[in-house]
Amino acid sequence: MNAADVAGFFADWGALNPEEYLLLDYYLECGGDPRQAAAHFCSEQSTAQWRRQGVDEDLRPRFAAKVVDLQVEATQSEFSYPVDCPAPGPVHTCRVRIAHPHGNFGPRLPNLLSAICGEGTFFSPGIPLVKLLDIHFPATYLAGFEGPRFGVAGLRDLLGVHDRPLFFGVIKPNLGLPPEAFAEAGYQGWLGGLDIAKDDEMLADMDWCPLAERSTLLGAARQRAEARTGQAKIYLANITDEVDRLCDLHDLAVSHGANAVLVNALPVGLSAVRMLRRHARVPLIAHFPLTAALSRLPHYGIHTRVMTRLQRLAGFDAIIMPGFGPRMMTSAAEVLDNVRACLEPLGPIKPSLPVPGGSDWAGTLGEVHRLIGGVDFGFVPGRGVFAHPQGPEAGACSIRQAWEAIARGIPLERQALDHPELAAAIAAFGPLPATEPVSAEEQSPPEDQHPPEEQLILVGAISAGRPTSPGRATHPRRSPGSAMRHGR
Amino acid sequence: MNAADVAGFFADWGALNPEEYLLLDYYLECGGDPRQAAAHFCSEQSTAQWRRQGVDEDLRPRFAAKVVDLQVEATQSEFSYPVDCPAPGPVHTCRVRIAHPHGNFGPRLPNLLSAICGEGTFFSPGIPLVKLLDIHFPATYLAGFEGPRFGVAGLRDLLGVHDRPLFFGVIKPNLGLPPEAFAEAGYQGWLGGLDIAKDDEMLADMDWCPLAERSTLLGAARQRAEARTGQAKIYLANITDEVDRLCDLHDLAVSHGANAVLVNALPVGLSAVRMLRRHARVPLIAHFPLTAALSRLPHYGIHTRVMTRLQRLAGFDAIIMPGFGPRMMTSAAEVLDNVRACLEPLGPIKPSLPVPGGSDWAGTLGEVHRLIGGVDFGFVPGRGVFAHPQGPEAGACSIRQAWEAIARGIPLERQALDHPELAAAIAAFGPLPATEPVSAEEQSPPEDQHPPEEQLILVGAISAGRPTSPGRATHPRRSPGSAMRHGR
Repeated sequence: MNAADVAGFFADWGALNPEEYLLLDYYLECGGDPRQAAAHFCSEQSTAQWRRQGVDEDLRPRFAAKVVDLQVEATQSEFSYPVDCPAPGPVHTCRVRIAHPHGNFGPRLPNLLSAICGEGTFFSPGIPLVKLLDIHFPATYLAGFEGPRFGVAGLRDLLGVHDRPLFFGVIKPNLGLPPEAFAEAGYQGWLGGLDIAKDDEMLADMDWCPLAERSTLLGAARQRAEARTGQAKIYLANITDEVDRLCDLHDLAVSHGANAVLVNALPVGLSAVRMLRRHARVPLIAHFPLTAALSRLPHYGIHTRVMTRLQRLAGFDAIIMPGFGPRMMTSAAEVLDNVRACLEPLGPIKPSLPVPGGSDWAGTLGEVHRLIGGVDFGFVPGRGVFAHPQGPEAGACSIRQAWEAIARGIPLERQALDHPELAAAIAAFGPLPATEPVSAEEQSPPEDQHPPEEQLILVGAISAGRPTSPGRATHPRRSPGSAMRHGR
Repeated sequence: MNAADVAGFFADWGALNPEEYLLLDYYLECGGDPRQAAAHFCSEQSTAQWRRQGVDEDLRPRFAAKVVDLQVEATQSEFSYPVDCPAPGPVHTCRVRIAHPHGNFGPRLPNLLSAICGEGTFFSPGIPLVKLLDIHFPATYLAGFEGPRFGVAGLRDLLGVHDRPLFFGVIKPNLGLPPEAFAEAGYQGWLGGLDIAKDDEMLADMDWCPLAERSTLLGAARQRAEARTGQAKIYLANITDEVDRLCDLHDLAVSHGANAVLVNALPVGLSAVRMLRRHARVPLIAHFPLTAALSRLPHYGIHTRVMTRLQRLAGFDAIIMPGFGPRMMTSAAEVLDNVRACLEPLGPIKPSLPVPGGSDWAGTLGEVHRLIGGVDFGFVPGRGVFAHPQGPEAGACSIRQAWEAIARGIPLERQALDHPELAAAIAAFGPLPATEPVSAEEQSPPEDQHPPEEQLILVGAISAGRPTSPGRATHPRRSPGSAMRHGR
């Protein structure tokens, strides 16, 4: 590209119609000139050849993705990870904000993914390392999506629970139990205080535990538990299967007694979830297989927050995601990014309940609550309930005892003195985790309290300054909001 | 886990029924004891809690994934990429082969993905870095899949072309042309010698180029080109869209004149492709958005070869994949791995045509042909045809002239002397690429010529020796084969 070609892929955000563009934030590492690399990046993402041979035309004003901000963060001698693409000179690490015309593909998830993290994004000349950090949607684009049918408020209404987290439990052993034993474990969990007993994400409709029989038994157990406890309960059946079975399995599970369904979002595909959303009559809950393969490394792939936003658009009422603690190899800041992505305002799209999970038990509940800073979340232990030494009822009971202590400001150690189930949990799964320090970013005020100056975009400018934290980047002409206060 | 628990996740492959297991090859990096880490890895992939509290049972013999080979390759002081999981001591880099019981989930692509690259794989204690390198299927598992309807032989029969590569061309400008201009470009490409003129993977069913109108015009242009050239042609329409529109868009495109359809495999989801395969009456062609986000880094994610195998299982007749040359940031060895995964015997599943692509033009055809070592491939230039200075007909013609030279053993420079379209291509897109050296691995004899001793698995053994190259790992009790000689 010559200088004029490059200039055609840069734009002044203030001169564009913001309703016609998605805003995409990328981290990228390039060998060679960053402006040239960013222009190629836009070209590859959109109209890679913008005129026919021999025709005087320029398709870029309408169809090109355009750089609206480019910040060179640092220069280093090599790419951060060795790749099959030798650097021709110094490597520049950059943050770039792209305005991508959604009229190129419309409100279709597969076409959106193909544009924002497809061949163009990952095979742009001179940019072997790239990570899609965030995406922001204008109202016109959001209007093309249905989003969750129930959302956080709808889920709470179904359970009649409005003032505390929702307590999920993954029935264990996850694979191999026959339906009777599996249902009995769920029943015990509900009696002990679970709101939602769920299938493991790997449990399918197998001959050794058919979904019809499982749903029948769990549905009956659920009704017995509701009668005994006087509280509404949910059996969350995993219907993850081939796409052409999803709607049938939803009908089968629901007609037999399930009142919510679990789908492994990326393995099934977000678009198939959207199809199911149009059909389903019960809440849809997402599980996260495959996401980490895209997201774990800081300088390559796709940030989990993008996947969370897309799962919300696809219509999940709750999103199970990698949670806090060293086991899940995800920083607290990243978990909180995802919690915000579930709860913050998103035009007409309802909030999804965030369910950060991973090796939780009664002792980790306080820390999850403290980090999230509110009650709009789901808590999803597995072995912390079902491997409790006194059985699943005591395991679930230990969770509720922990919550009671947290709500009253009582230290867990003291609560355990006269709550034997909690004491047994601490003995089995403890020690109690140390309190994690909350970083400056987590403590920062919510986005809508930032002065508007901080949200300005340096249009087309290259500077060595540090850009706005991607965690707080927002669509500058929409009204962003605090995550935690709008969950319902 | 104690020592007995760990031992329960190791097995002697010779003592297992090979028809009941998938074989999975992983690269992994672990802090701490590799045997312990590998046992956890299997546990998390399958039955994470293998007995109920207070019940004397062990679900592992039937339901557990089992280590059948573990090779520690090296020890280093840190993980290869910095991650949110500090190493507690030295880091071991390992190759592990897992026998995973497919009776846990059955022949269902979403459940397969959830098991082999889901939460268990990417959140196993002490293993922050892992890459799924390969997968091998027994005949009983393959029997659950349909695979391609046409395959390589079927595609060749449709075109009446049996002795050379198939020539695709991506109509450009890819986005923004109205249907008339788009169809005219395709027509010119067919006249010049393309077999298949295709939509770009980012071109959807948009109001500025509706699929119905596009298919009508391209279908008519195709018939005119067939009449003028006396050769069968294919218009490959991109029907990538929301899953619940796929079958309708197939019908619409085909009824208006398309005779093959393109689907962006991962953005749509492999299971949705399988659904479409059951419905479709024309060849299905895959494009590769999103794959690189999973596969580029050598020590994390999922190898492209796994995705190629799964696309073949899902039913694609041809698979467009990142090809040779520096632009595509993929080693020649990896491209050849994918070519083999398309063509090698796979039980009753037909071969898919490999279509390695990326910035190709007449000058790169010889090198692609030489590296593949056969004619069973598709060649897919975009700008190399449609940005030819003399127009798309001359662009396509330059490709055919290059092939004629290759087939006759004439150097391209000499062929260009009396073939002006080729000469113009060299002037516009050249210089001609240098010949890449073929590595020892690429030159190695086909798999079925290896003595059987080399395919033995060191059961449960840990050694510091180098394992069999993952590119040649095969299911030891099935008959592997040479990739290139079985393409049809």
